[in-house]
Amino acid sequence: SLLSGAGAGAEAGCSAPAVAAVLPAGGSGERMGVPTPKQFCPILERPLISYTLQALERVSWIKDIVVAVTGENMEAMKCIIQRYQHKGISLVESGVTRHRSIFNGLKALAEDQPNCRLSKPEVVIIHDAVRPFVEEDVLLKVVTAAKEHGAAGAIRPLVSTVISPSVDGCLDHSLERARHRASEMPQAFLFDVIYEAYQQCSDYDLEFGTECLHLALKYCHIKAKLIEGSPDLWKVTYKRDLYAAESIIKERISQQICVVMDAKEDEEHVGHRLEEMLKNELNHVKVTSGRDLQQIILEQCYNFVCVNVMTSDFEETQKLLNMLEESNLSILYPVVVISVQFLDYESVPFGQKMENLMQIREFAKEVKKTNILLYGLLVYYPQDEQKLQESLRQGATIIAALIKERNSGLIGQLLVA
Amino acid sequence: SLLSGAGAGAEAGCSAPAVAAVLPAGGSGERMGVPTPKQFCPILERPLISYTLQALERVSWIKDIVVAVTGENMEAMKCIIQRYQHKGISLVESGVTRHRSIFNGLKALAEDQPNCRLSKPEVVIIHDAVRPFVEEDVLLKVVTAAKEHGAAGAIRPLVSTVISPSVDGCLDHSLERARHRASEMPQAFLFDVIYEAYQQCSDYDLEFGTECLHLALKYCHIKAKLIEGSPDLWKVTYKRDLYAAESIIKERISQQICVVMDAKEDEEHVGHRLEEMLKNELNHVKVTSGRDLQQIILEQCYNFVCVNVMTSDFEETQKLLNMLEESNLSILYPVVVISVQFLDYESVPFGQKMENLMQIREFAKEVKKTNILLYGLLVYYPQDEQKLQESLRQGATIIAALIKERNSGLIGQLLVA
Ligand SMILES: [Mg+2]
Ligand SMILES: [Mg+2]
Repeated sequence: SLLSGAGAGAEAGCSAPAVAAVLPAGGSGERMGVPTPKQFCPILERPLISYTLQALERVSWIKDIVVAVTGENMEAMKCIIQRYQHKGISLVESGVTRHRSIFNGLKALAEDQPNCRLSKPEVVIIHDAVRPFVEEDVLLKVVTAAKEHGAAGAIRPLVSTVISPSVDGCLDHSLERARHRASEMPQAFLFDVIYEAYQQCSDYDLEFGTECLHLALKYCHIKAKLIEGSPDLWKVTYKRDLYAAESIIKERISQQICVVMDAKEDEEHVGHRLEEMLKNELNHVKVTSGRDLQQIILEQCYNFVCVNVMTSDFEETQKLLNMLEESNLSILYPVVVISVQFLDYESVPFGQKMENLMQIREFAKEVKKTNILLYGLLVYYPQDEQKLQESLRQGATIIAALIKERNSGLIGQLLVA
Repeated sequence: SLLSGAGAGAEAGCSAPAVAAVLPAGGSGERMGVPTPKQFCPILERPLISYTLQALERVSWIKDIVVAVTGENMEAMKCIIQRYQHKGISLVESGVTRHRSIFNGLKALAEDQPNCRLSKPEVVIIHDAVRPFVEEDVLLKVVTAAKEHGAAGAIRPLVSTVISPSVDGCLDHSLERARHRASEMPQAFLFDVIYEAYQQCSDYDLEFGTECLHLALKYCHIKAKLIEGSPDLWKVTYKRDLYAAESIIKERISQQICVVMDAKEDEEHVGHRLEEMLKNELNHVKVTSGRDLQQIILEQCYNFVCVNVMTSDFEETQKLLNMLEESNLSILYPVVVISVQFLDYESVPFGQKMENLMQIREFAKEVKKTNILLYGLLVYYPQDEQKLQESLRQGATIIAALIKERNSGLIGQLLVA
């Protein structure tokens, strides 16, 4: 299949199947123990479902995404799509069960409705709104296998042994763990197969069933191909899963730091030394020099260290902030900007300098409105080489801490290294 | 059973069974994708297994805890026990599989060895080193049920459908989710039952089996009672689970803040107003006044806001730090101390005051050695009532942020509200 070429290549190939995705998102949040349904719970202030939409819409060969939400949440969902600029999303009303919601999504794709831009795909992906970390790789695998087998789904090894209880609440038997798997998402189907299965299946299936692969087997005699998925496919189910998802997202957007300097020619520059220190102290983090800021913003770097040596004001930081605001980089994730000043306490009165720098609080309040988290950092710059090393190291530690936590309660603070 | 009386009461009752626990902790960390076995991964700088030991040893009616670790990790485990002052722990060498490790633990309890303080219990709990959030409640339930039924284990509803693959990697059949459960830990057994089962069972069972309840059924014909457990019983398996565990622990130790003041009589005191603001702004957090510090430390409050109004130095903070260091409160969790000063910028030169307060960096470095995280907070105290409200609110936000994140990279910083 040309699909295995993936990405843009597949888009051009005429044998690439038309692919759509259906996302049931009508569930309530009962398992979380919180009032908000879990797909709408915020992570870094953005609803979980937006991360899942982002994961699907970056895949160029997925043409349409149909999301099934309750009538109650329809307006909220429209706002999410608009605010986070999601493209190619259609909304349908969810049913009272997961299967009924999926069925509604499939109907929207099957029917040639007036004023509807959807058309029937060859293959349809079914995914969960609460599995935001799905990768293009596994989507491609289930779609390719569905084209060949009619149906395919991601699986994972079992973490716990599965047992069957007797009616009196005692162990009847336990299942051999090695012979069973957990059925996860995404799954993919030839559209005609899964649509037929939903049209044929009983009300009992629609009310109490949980497994699409089962419907394809029962009503269309299609044995789904099983695809080994990564641990990241797990379903955000409990409050602890929201914590885990937040930590994973924070970690992912903290992998790159761009250092911007106001003195570009001098390699002896203390800013370069801070950059070197960041490289040495922060393993696994890519430290980039900000020579081509437009390019770095395009590459989605979410962390900026802005070094001001020549000037004692925020001119360089202001330029960077303006660029960031124009770029829309911070629509999806909070962007961290740390404005660094160096100071030799012995030559400049410390207190006076700090008072001057306190205006960063006003800037921070202003740019927070566009999801930019601005902090100040004052690095001690003594004559003594060893002391300088120490304050640069301390500066790197503070920068790492601010980027890792992305704490909006501390914006506008002036930290001292 | 007198056990249902729980706690200290059960201890006195002569019909309370002697209970021991066995913790297999010989596993390697392969599923985490990290070199450290997961039971030794640090959370807030303390190894995961220490949290699990803490959860078991706080239960007064568990007399002995036997931990099975590899010869390689024996010394590290001894250090953990010493450093975190765990009591009543015995170490045995683990086997190459989970079942063999549990068997080694049971043997240590069964045998009357010279120089060994262990004695054979009536009931034995088997738990995992990587399930740190086990509550006394569920331990009591499995022990009580084991006494009656011979065996008992915690279960949870399935999060995913379980399927059985055919040899060619396709779906053979899926299991009805409502008729199955995940078998979790803790489990409990009459000692003679589970010891007999391990002595009878085959090498194949010891090598490839995963389920203790299954051994009791197969070799002793005991149908274990199944006990519905809470979501918190989940097993820390992947890196994301470590993130989740860290967030849960941080949340748990952030539920109470003690406000300590240097002026105790005056209710108009700005410190009282900060305390009120904390109460209003931080929902779900208990804000306590520090009138009886010894009592509050005993109650395991891990967060202190120390307000200095009468003095402009750190006298009150020093007193608190000394008390905390003597109490050993910070052995198990990092304790946050925020030293608050108020300042009317218009009457005192701002810079001079800050220079004076910078000595907090040295204090912070010093107390970090005993796991105390010290931060400074300077709150603007203007004449204008509305502005004062605003700076108190900002102060509460910063206090909340520092307590929530417990970030050791920012200790010694002087934050400004
Ligand atoms: Mg797309
Ligand atoms: Mg005990």
